[in-house]
Amino acid sequence: MSSYQAPLQDMQFLLQQVFDADSVWQAIPALAETIESDTAAAILAEAAKFNEEVVAPLNRAGDEQGVSFDNGQVTTPAGYAAAYQQYMEGGWIGLCGEPEFGGMGMPKMLGVLVDELGYSASNAFNLYASLTAGAALCIHAHGDEALKQRFLPKLYSGEWAGAMDMTEPQAGSDLRHILTKATPQADGSYRINGSKIFITGGDHDLTENIIHLVLAKIDGSDGISLFAVPKLAVDEAGNSGESNGVTAGAIEHKMGLKASATCVMHYDNAQGYLVGRANRGLVCMFTMMNYERLSIGIQGLGSAQAAYSLAAEYAKERKQGSAPGASAEIAPIIVHGDVRRMLLNIRCLTEAGRAMAVMTGLQLDLAKFAEDPHQKAYATKLAALLTPVTKAFLTDRGLDCTIDAQQVFGGHGYIRETGIEQWVRDTRIAQIYEGTNGIQAIDFLGRKLVADRAETLNQLLAEMTDALTSFSRVPAAYVEHQLAQQRQFSDAIAAIAEQKSTAPDLINAVAVDALNAFGYMLCGYYWLTMSERAQACQAKLPVTLVRSKQKLCDYYFTRLVGRFDMHLAAVTCGADSTMQLEAELF
Amino acid sequence: MSSYQAPLQDMQFLLQQVFDADSVWQAIPALAETIESDTAAAILAEAAKFNEEVVAPLNRAGDEQGVSFDNGQVTTPAGYAAAYQQYMEGGWIGLCGEPEFGGMGMPKMLGVLVDELGYSASNAFNLYASLTAGAALCIHAHGDEALKQRFLPKLYSGEWAGAMDMTEPQAGSDLRHILTKATPQADGSYRINGSKIFITGGDHDLTENIIHLVLAKIDGSDGISLFAVPKLAVDEAGNSGESNGVTAGAIEHKMGLKASATCVMHYDNAQGYLVGRANRGLVCMFTMMNYERLSIGIQGLGSAQAAYSLAAEYAKERKQGSAPGASAEIAPIIVHGDVRRMLLNIRCLTEAGRAMAVMTGLQLDLAKFAEDPHQKAYATKLAALLTPVTKAFLTDRGLDCTIDAQQVFGGHGYIRETGIEQWVRDTRIAQIYEGTNGIQAIDFLGRKLVADRAETLNQLLAEMTDALTSFSRVPAAYVEHQLAQQRQFSDAIAAIAEQKSTAPDLINAVAVDALNAFGYMLCGYYWLTMSERAQACQAKLPVTLVRSKQKLCDYYFTRLVGRFDMHLAAVTCGADSTMQLEAELF
Repeated sequence: MSSYQAPLQDMQFLLQQVFDADSVWQAIPALAETIESDTAAAILAEAAKFNEEVVAPLNRAGDEQGVSFDNGQVTTPAGYAAAYQQYMEGGWIGLCGEPEFGGMGMPKMLGVLVDELGYSASNAFNLYASLTAGAALCIHAHGDEALKQRFLPKLYSGEWAGAMDMTEPQAGSDLRHILTKATPQADGSYRINGSKIFITGGDHDLTENIIHLVLAKIDGSDGISLFAVPKLAVDEAGNSGESNGVTAGAIEHKMGLKASATCVMHYDNAQGYLVGRANRGLVCMFTMMNYERLSIGIQGLGSAQAAYSLAAEYAKERKQGSAPGASAEIAPIIVHGDVRRMLLNIRCLTEAGRAMAVMTGLQLDLAKFAEDPHQKAYATKLAALLTPVTKAFLTDRGLDCTIDAQQVFGGHGYIRETGIEQWVRDTRIAQIYEGTNGIQAIDFLGRKLVADRAETLNQLLAEMTDALTSFSRVPAAYVEHQLAQQRQFSDAIAAIAEQKSTAPDLINAVAVDALNAFGYMLCGYYWLTMSERAQACQAKLPVTLVRSKQKLCDYYFTRLVGRFDMHLAAVTCGADSTMQLEAELF
Repeated sequence: MSSYQAPLQDMQFLLQQVFDADSVWQAIPALAETIESDTAAAILAEAAKFNEEVVAPLNRAGDEQGVSFDNGQVTTPAGYAAAYQQYMEGGWIGLCGEPEFGGMGMPKMLGVLVDELGYSASNAFNLYASLTAGAALCIHAHGDEALKQRFLPKLYSGEWAGAMDMTEPQAGSDLRHILTKATPQADGSYRINGSKIFITGGDHDLTENIIHLVLAKIDGSDGISLFAVPKLAVDEAGNSGESNGVTAGAIEHKMGLKASATCVMHYDNAQGYLVGRANRGLVCMFTMMNYERLSIGIQGLGSAQAAYSLAAEYAKERKQGSAPGASAEIAPIIVHGDVRRMLLNIRCLTEAGRAMAVMTGLQLDLAKFAEDPHQKAYATKLAALLTPVTKAFLTDRGLDCTIDAQQVFGGHGYIRETGIEQWVRDTRIAQIYEGTNGIQAIDFLGRKLVADRAETLNQLLAEMTDALTSFSRVPAAYVEHQLAQQRQFSDAIAAIAEQKSTAPDLINAVAVDALNAFGYMLCGYYWLTMSERAQACQAKLPVTLVRSKQKLCDYYFTRLVGRFDMHLAAVTCGADSTMQLEAELF
């Protein structure tokens, strides 16, 4: 099995032809100097090379060896520490970080693609970096100047890692019930006491220090606050010192992601620093959480892409059976329609999913950098709307795609040494952590659509409609179908908003189907856009790329477009059938 | 986590009220003396007790410990050999076996339910028994009298086990290319030389001997023949003696099913006995294969049921969040519509899937026992039509259901000690082995529908229509919807049959969607039937059962019925979009 090959051509096509990144970047003063297409291409090529050559080869051995825990010390698999050192030296963790604290200030539209390359090489390895970048983002957004000076440079450089410490045994999806306590000290810091579970990267041997962002309740308050709690004490100059009472109590044994340390963490009078305002910790943590949600969506995407590479290669090499209607000669299994069906499903969902990730990255860039306050406000709301979709839709499809890819291998797909089954196990967690996909869907439908009175949604749909009606190179029937789905979706959401007050269970009951309907609707939109743009720009593009986009668009609108209808039908069916069976009859 | 609890009430309801088993059995002379409802109930209760108390407790430890291989010897996990001894003593392996060779002669309609109980307790443990029963079935169907006398009594008793040896590295789905050779001997036996891979239960320490059914080519012939090849030589009196040159070369390390030994097998001049006619081995092996296909479908069903039990119990105990619109009081997560959605999906698919399995068992019984030749011929064809559906639809839904069940557990679902993730890993193989689900679908659409000119299908649909039009207790709108789907399905198959000669790729390209459309159509039919029959027989049934069937039927026709449409749309879209992308563009 050859190693991972990055889909650089598809990525470049998305950035330049589909999202017209150069124009976007030129229009933003903060980015115009930093980035243009050649720089972006060089960064992607470098990230691809590093992930293909250094990270991908560690992935399977890391799964077999796993993380170990002895005498309170977590040890990552062989090769992880050395690779992480190289990763750090490449400056990758600070790619989208703030230049004043040592970050490279690159746009997130590029960052999501680099993140995909990382997850495609190794889910477990990339997570350590993703949490570090997310912790830095949160400290930058909510920390005071002293905290930023103290922590950000070493987070961006990668010398220190970050972790997000929220869950306790009795408080998972519902964080109101956390018991970890923070006691104010005379110097303005706090002493943290308590325990957390399921802390990804809670302890490891990759970095000198780990900065934990910990949710806790200040003595006497039931509000939740956020604290930066280093593993080793940090002096005012930003140097690590002795132990700060933050220890791993155990690591979990999991279905997959075995090279990622999932820790039970204990805080024994650990010194912590308030991030943001007291009792406003959930709001601050959401800055990190939303960053991680997008990143986890990309975990699903990266897994699907990696699994596709393996399966497509196998399907072209493995000979078994003959092509229907042809001679009896044994042929590679890619001649079989059912094998193609699986590969085309993956391809369609992965390429459209990548467009959704880039779209979300673009909105985050506009929310951060745009000078027009209206554009900034809309981009902020649109990023908030797209984040739960990117997280849930891309991870649900990520699992579907890794399962399809495994199926292409037949019996060999179930054997560990083939390597494909690891992608199924590793990506499965992405539907669960950082808020289960059910939680994402309720956030999407309840807060981002209904509570917003569908304003952001309808603005997005209007923009999509404008774009679609300008298309001249894709079949008109597909465009009509897409426009009809967009109208149906808008109508369905309006109907839910109307019933909201009389049917309190409705949003929870139909949210997952609403999110999936929206996700497939976006897939349709992006396939039309990709096919249109590929044809419009064909002079600049390889002929194979243009043909692939056209044919995949055909496949999508022929075979996958009906998935929207299935989910929409479930959205419009009310909550009664879901809620009426008494709990004791389950 | 409490252990597995068998769904005996639902099973009894299916047998007695839905399939009217007593009437069926009374009408068949060979069964009228053997079985009636009280005996069936006692057998199910005993099987439930054994599987709950003896087998289920071994399942998780068996996964952790796995099978080991040292010095050519395969050792099953601690407790397996003792439990298998008890299983054997209970006579379970010969449950549906031939009385003249020591079997109990029970109907398969009951056997499928016992099989489900076994798989729900442990996929890995039950497989050893399933392969033994399948090998006995094949020897009984195709072996000569001497072979039957020699092998069947000890297979039915469980003293010996069976295995099915087909795959070689270069010959998986396409068995034409096997290299294993059989050389005729003067005494009428053969000497077998070669190697096989992926042999489930190829070697183990559970039984004195293992009878391998091996596909091989007789010297000088390219036809494939079937041989019974014992691990230890068997004398004419049926006693095991010394080694017969059948050895395990290695065991595979797999994603799951770790307590099941998947072996590389070597045959070094091993003595084998021809089963059936020379060069007709594939036909003979299909007798075992079809038995195993049904059994593997039930593996998916049993996994879904076991996972449901765990998830439903967790959902009623785990408190997190509050019910929408209610007080802020913390509540068990079953108050949330999205948790209910996952549990109801599993419940609907599992109960309807169980009806499909019993239906298939019924047809096998009629094919075997019916005295009316027309009834026998139809049942034979219908069993052949239903077998690939039961295999593929129940294993695909089995994976969906175990994944949904795992999702109910949130983060805890990804931790090995919770036990739920094992069901996902163990059941994943069921979509692959005994013919991938893609192969099942091509068999279903190509051979069982199109090559049959849809005769069996249309007879089945006519019977279903008759039953549906007699229903008076279920909503007429559901019945109309179901009848419309049945017409659409019949039309779609007719259209495919018409295009067959001009579109050689069509069947392969749309087969999986056709099988799934048919599967969901049957689910709808069985939900209407179960709701109708529960209400019609309510005087004899617990009120909670009647209410559950009605409400689950509502859920099915509200939320899941659209899945048929999605698959049917893909069936009717032709092969072009699937076939047109050049192989090198994948």
